[in-house]
Amino acid sequence: MTSDLPAHGLKLISTVTRAGELVLQLVEAPVAAPGADEVVIRVEATPINPSDLGVLLGPADLAAARFEGSAERPTVAIPLSPAAVKALAGRLDRPLSAGNEGAGQVVAAGDAARSLLGKRVAVLAGGMYAQYRTVRAADGLVLPKDVTAAEGASAFVNPLTALAMVETMKLEGHTGLVHTAAASNLGQMLVRICLEEGVPLVNIVRKPEQAELLRSLGARHVCCSSAPGFFEDLVQALGETRATLAFDAIGGGRTAGQILAAMEAVAAAKMTEYSVYGSGQPKQVYIYGALDPSPTELVRNFGLTWGVGGWLMPPVLLRIGPQAAERLRARVLAGLKTVFASRYTREISLAEMLQRETLLAISRKATGEKFLLNPSK
Amino acid sequence: MTSDLPAHGLKLISTVTRAGELVLQLVEAPVAAPGADEVVIRVEATPINPSDLGVLLGPADLAAARFEGSAERPTVAIPLSPAAVKALAGRLDRPLSAGNEGAGQVVAAGDAARSLLGKRVAVLAGGMYAQYRTVRAADGLVLPKDVTAAEGASAFVNPLTALAMVETMKLEGHTGLVHTAAASNLGQMLVRICLEEGVPLVNIVRKPEQAELLRSLGARHVCCSSAPGFFEDLVQALGETRATLAFDAIGGGRTAGQILAAMEAVAAAKMTEYSVYGSGQPKQVYIYGALDPSPTELVRNFGLTWGVGGWLMPPVLLRIGPQAAERLRARVLAGLKTVFASRYTREISLAEMLQRETLLAISRKATGEKFLLNPSK
Repeated sequence: MTSDLPAHGLKLISTVTRAGELVLQLVEAPVAAPGADEVVIRVEATPINPSDLGVLLGPADLAAARFEGSAERPTVAIPLSPAAVKALAGRLDRPLSAGNEGAGQVVAAGDAARSLLGKRVAVLAGGMYAQYRTVRAADGLVLPKDVTAAEGASAFVNPLTALAMVETMKLEGHTGLVHTAAASNLGQMLVRICLEEGVPLVNIVRKPEQAELLRSLGARHVCCSSAPGFFEDLVQALGETRATLAFDAIGGGRTAGQILAAMEAVAAAKMTEYSVYGSGQPKQVYIYGALDPSPTELVRNFGLTWGVGGWLMPPVLLRIGPQAAERLRARVLAGLKTVFASRYTREISLAEMLQRETLLAISRKATGEKFLLNPSK
Repeated sequence: MTSDLPAHGLKLISTVTRAGELVLQLVEAPVAAPGADEVVIRVEATPINPSDLGVLLGPADLAAARFEGSAERPTVAIPLSPAAVKALAGRLDRPLSAGNEGAGQVVAAGDAARSLLGKRVAVLAGGMYAQYRTVRAADGLVLPKDVTAAEGASAFVNPLTALAMVETMKLEGHTGLVHTAAASNLGQMLVRICLEEGVPLVNIVRKPEQAELLRSLGARHVCCSSAPGFFEDLVQALGETRATLAFDAIGGGRTAGQILAAMEAVAAAKMTEYSVYGSGQPKQVYIYGALDPSPTELVRNFGLTWGVGGWLMPPVLLRIGPQAAERLRARVLAGLKTVFASRYTREISLAEMLQRETLLAISRKATGEKFLLNPSK
């Protein structure tokens, strides 16, 4: 049943200690033998997404980190503020494994899952920052032969998040989208999905070169937030697209409120009668990331018909139901080399991930810089 | 058909001029003769609600106001900032009448509305800051004989807003409410409604004497935001009530975010597994006022399952449908002296309203100070 399965494998864990530190370390963990309907994956590729960093680093400030241990077994210890420790009470002294998704080869399988042995699968199972991961066979997405582990590593989080944004738009009665930090891997997927589906999309980026990148993918509306006429550009793009739903990866500062104000400016221009409550046009911004962890500031110059809220992909898949969700997964699988392709700037090992410069670069979450972890390296 | 209907009557108008001033003045306007299905009301009582002030004063700063004209025909002119003029573009050089609701005697009626002649009616029709107002007969709520104009003046905005809050709670799957600025006339109604319906309600007030007032009405959960243990008190009250929907009249500052953080603290205490996304408990704050016009600041320490949004009563009445809305109106009519009673601290005339001290007092929107306008005075 099992092949050459080792007894132990390295895995990365993150622990918030009662002493007030966040500790990242590599531990030798026993490789769980597969149950009848389980498989063991030798993980070959797993992306480092902002949502993974939430588990790995939480609110810890790397500037104060101590990098210790050997080159093969590095350790990082980061002092936390008392407020941060309090906010993390739910994970105190509980070692957390990390890495939402990834791909690799099935090296052992239970009786009911024999057919997967030797196949390459992608999985959204958590704990992927490990050499081996035992998961339910049903959770594995078998990758076509010509798809590499790197190509299959990000088959869930970004693709399904981008698709779920479009589904949310349909569910909530909007007909166009706005997206911030739009040059990200996720943002590029969204551009391609919206082109495919004919959904009007307004992309907000920070730098001219990011605008160029998106235009080269076919994006029609790109507004650069660092440009002098940004707000006017945004109003113009919203007027042309009639987009009234935005997804914001930034979270902090005035971006969400600016988007609502621009949407309201479009709606107000069409009002024939003044109302102190503003237009009746529904306007929504969903915050799904925290590239800027500072407070969200809403100036509230956009009437009383508006909403801002948190947003996650999994509840959307529940809302649309299992069959529709399955169709989305099949669409991703078919498009891993095209619509849903991800780009990585560097492949690193588990030990490299805990080196100072690498971890600092990862924590910057810079658009255009994306790391792929290969725990088997 | 008409009785002793005068040709003209005084009315209050508010105009934003292209020259950059907001001007309040009393004008002699022709009294429109009633159409077949219309009545003319001699307005005897009309409340000054925060929503009326939005039309009257907008964002104008009274500190710079010039009070001119005679005692009988006062005028107020308030210079506006260029930003304010821009924000008010929709009402530039359009004189707006004000006063959402009020009550008075029917002094003239069209053929189809004869039966109303001489009756006292309440109406939500706008333009009530006037001696006479011609409205559709169908919009008039005939008041019982023992109900005075003062008692019937606020039969719509506050009562229906408080009832619509409870309806929203039911529509959106919550089972308890939080209310800020809870000692207002509206807040007192909400306390009585929630007691009647058995809806758990957490009241947030600023001052101990306001807490006392609400407790004297039977309120069980009152948290005082100026007290040192406010946040802990709030968490405790939310734990006891399981309230996950809040209505916030304040708008600016950190109140909305604090409420979400307290709701999340209650939900997090029951989680068995840590999640970087926080609890899956839906948490919503609706902002329906702007007692603090400064920006809303959300610290976002409450996971990703949350919403903040603007809120208005009329769309809720549309959502529940005409029959349910009619039942709410009937309930208000039956409770004008009890559940839906309003308190006023002063009755003023149209001319008094435009005097410096009166207008300043009105614009403070202080809880416990409430003005009733009697245009027939």
